[in-house]
Amino acid sequence: MNLARVAQKLGITESRLQGLHETVIRESGWPEPRLLRFEKETSGVEAGTVIFENGEIVFGYPKIHRALMLAAAVKRHFSDLVAVQEKMNGHNVRILSLNGDIVALTRGGFICPYSTEVARRLVPEYIFEKNPNLVLCGEMVGPENPYVAKDIYPTDSIDFYLFDITEKNCKSTLCVHRTYEIAEEYGLKATAFLGEFHKESAAERIKQIVIRLGRQGREGVVMKDPENIVAPLKYTSSQTNCSDLAVAFRYYNDYALDFFVSRAVREGFQSVEWNESEEERRARALSLGESILLPLVDTIERAQRGENIVQKVQIRVKSLQTARDFEYHLRRSGIRVIFEQPVPDDDGYLIRITKLIMSTNDKTQALLNGEMW
Amino acid sequence: MNLARVAQKLGITESRLQGLHETVIRESGWPEPRLLRFEKETSGVEAGTVIFENGEIVFGYPKIHRALMLAAAVKRHFSDLVAVQEKMNGHNVRILSLNGDIVALTRGGFICPYSTEVARRLVPEYIFEKNPNLVLCGEMVGPENPYVAKDIYPTDSIDFYLFDITEKNCKSTLCVHRTYEIAEEYGLKATAFLGEFHKESAAERIKQIVIRLGRQGREGVVMKDPENIVAPLKYTSSQTNCSDLAVAFRYYNDYALDFFVSRAVREGFQSVEWNESEEERRARALSLGESILLPLVDTIERAQRGENIVQKVQIRVKSLQTARDFEYHLRRSGIRVIFEQPVPDDDGYLIRITKLIMSTNDKTQALLNGEMW
Repeated sequence: MNLARVAQKLGITESRLQGLHETVIRESGWPEPRLLRFEKETSGVEAGTVIFENGEIVFGYPKIHRALMLAAAVKRHFSDLVAVQEKMNGHNVRILSLNGDIVALTRGGFICPYSTEVARRLVPEYIFEKNPNLVLCGEMVGPENPYVAKDIYPTDSIDFYLFDITEKNCKSTLCVHRTYEIAEEYGLKATAFLGEFHKESAAERIKQIVIRLGRQGREGVVMKDPENIVAPLKYTSSQTNCSDLAVAFRYYNDYALDFFVSRAVREGFQSVEWNESEEERRARALSLGESILLPLVDTIERAQRGENIVQKVQIRVKSLQTARDFEYHLRRSGIRVIFEQPVPDDDGYLIRITKLIMSTNDKTQALLNGEMW
Repeated sequence: MNLARVAQKLGITESRLQGLHETVIRESGWPEPRLLRFEKETSGVEAGTVIFENGEIVFGYPKIHRALMLAAAVKRHFSDLVAVQEKMNGHNVRILSLNGDIVALTRGGFICPYSTEVARRLVPEYIFEKNPNLVLCGEMVGPENPYVAKDIYPTDSIDFYLFDITEKNCKSTLCVHRTYEIAEEYGLKATAFLGEFHKESAAERIKQIVIRLGRQGREGVVMKDPENIVAPLKYTSSQTNCSDLAVAFRYYNDYALDFFVSRAVREGFQSVEWNESEEERRARALSLGESILLPLVDTIERAQRGENIVQKVQIRVKSLQTARDFEYHLRRSGIRVIFEQPVPDDDGYLIRITKLIMSTNDKTQALLNGEMW
């Protein structure tokens, strides 16, 4: 690897690059190909940025800031037009080809064996034969997404939806319309394009879109400047805020605390901005309260019945090696899992996975036994 | 000060005592008398423990652990009888006499000028003339409590309720019945004594007490072993959990985040333990949701109207010097306050105080202006 060249592409000095090694930059030798990952944002390089052994870089997918007051944020942020994409609820992957092999990188810059098998099934290789530098950024969604299982999307397994395109060694993404052109050209699914609005009317239109998406249990939107002049913004539905809280309170001792407050505060701003009636606020408060109380009650009652607090998901793989690799991948991420015996199914295997939620499990058992908080 | 003697009374070595100086032990030279305070718990010495210049020690008021599952905790913790006191919602003070002057210490071990003036008004000096080593531990409550203003107690200003008695240089407290005897002997108000129960029937009785207290907006109970064989436990009403949340979300950017999750989790355990019906759970979820959403909405709407996010409280003092000292005391605690002109009233002054809630104020204004979270 030519360090000077890599540093130049990253936009940092060679000595800085060497200084980051083993502190911010971590090696990952498994699965192949070997790579270096930026564990956090440093010197303007996004977290999740990956450097392969041949010196090729895939920049991390940038964090998208969130509007709390939609109309004010749109007005303040955008210059003229606002293109609106659906924000889907799954996990973010970057799919690329290296030495002829397709790999899928997680947000953090690991190669995920399961996402990679899914990508190899869904993304035709000739895309990368024609464009070897292409990096397809998108969301893996569906009921067989073992990170975030959702059955609100039109798949009974797992699917990939493109939302951005970038290239190796390149920090910026293509403009949103170009992304959809390429998706169409190669027959790739892309996240729904929900319209392009002038900034004056955008907030009201987006509000209606988000209300409609929310009714379908969907997450929300990403707003983009069609010319990429300013960074994208995101905005989510009340249903997603509440559903996030429901997951967090079901596993209340395993989640970071700031998760909870941010979700609740979003509800407050949305209620004010949408100028809700007393009745609407009551309904929102009830949803919010139920999304906190009911999962807590369910978790405590399960523990009371002697059940372990676990999360059950499933994956479908072509190769048993993928399942073994994915098990190792989850374990190295600190997730305690039990993989059941693979069940042959079509031309592959269905594998049920039990994630152990240790901290919430142990805490709940202790509190039920009369221990103090 | 005889360091060896002080160390012995603290139960630590002299060199350990010297080592803690200026790290855990801080000097407070104002207001008189000068003292040293333990800023946090160390070597078995409670946070808030105070050493006066004459070597006398007042130990910190111990943290009381909380039951989440009331019946299981009572069964596990107590040996036979459980004495139940009301837990009042105000601020914890320790009142004592030093060289003939009554002073009131806050939980953290500061002398609070306002609490001290209140204590001098409410606690007869002859108690300390007869028992110079007495330390009266209790709650200052009422609408003119500038830390926690509550109008649910039978005072239109501020009152002191004894709940424990200890002595200088002594870590333990007197037994609960002795506390009430002394209160009666000297005509001191004490927190309500709500009964003494066998551990088998205690949880059900305490549940009924807590439900009744909750209906009155009151906080909950402290359960004590009448012989002080085991440490006390506390348990609070749903109304208090929700009212805590309401305060926290009104000032959402100024409160520690763990405040939120702990309150919500208490609601989950109470709902499970009390085996609530679907309808009761719905009502609890609505209260919980409203206690989060409505204060948030109110804060955001105030900011939208251009109001500053502030908290208004008031105190009533005999001496203007007390007000000036209290202002300094709040400032040194990092609280930004505006004291209005004193209004003469009876034989003293009424002073309105505005506490500025800077972080929530600034954050809300920024978000309303379309800044991102």
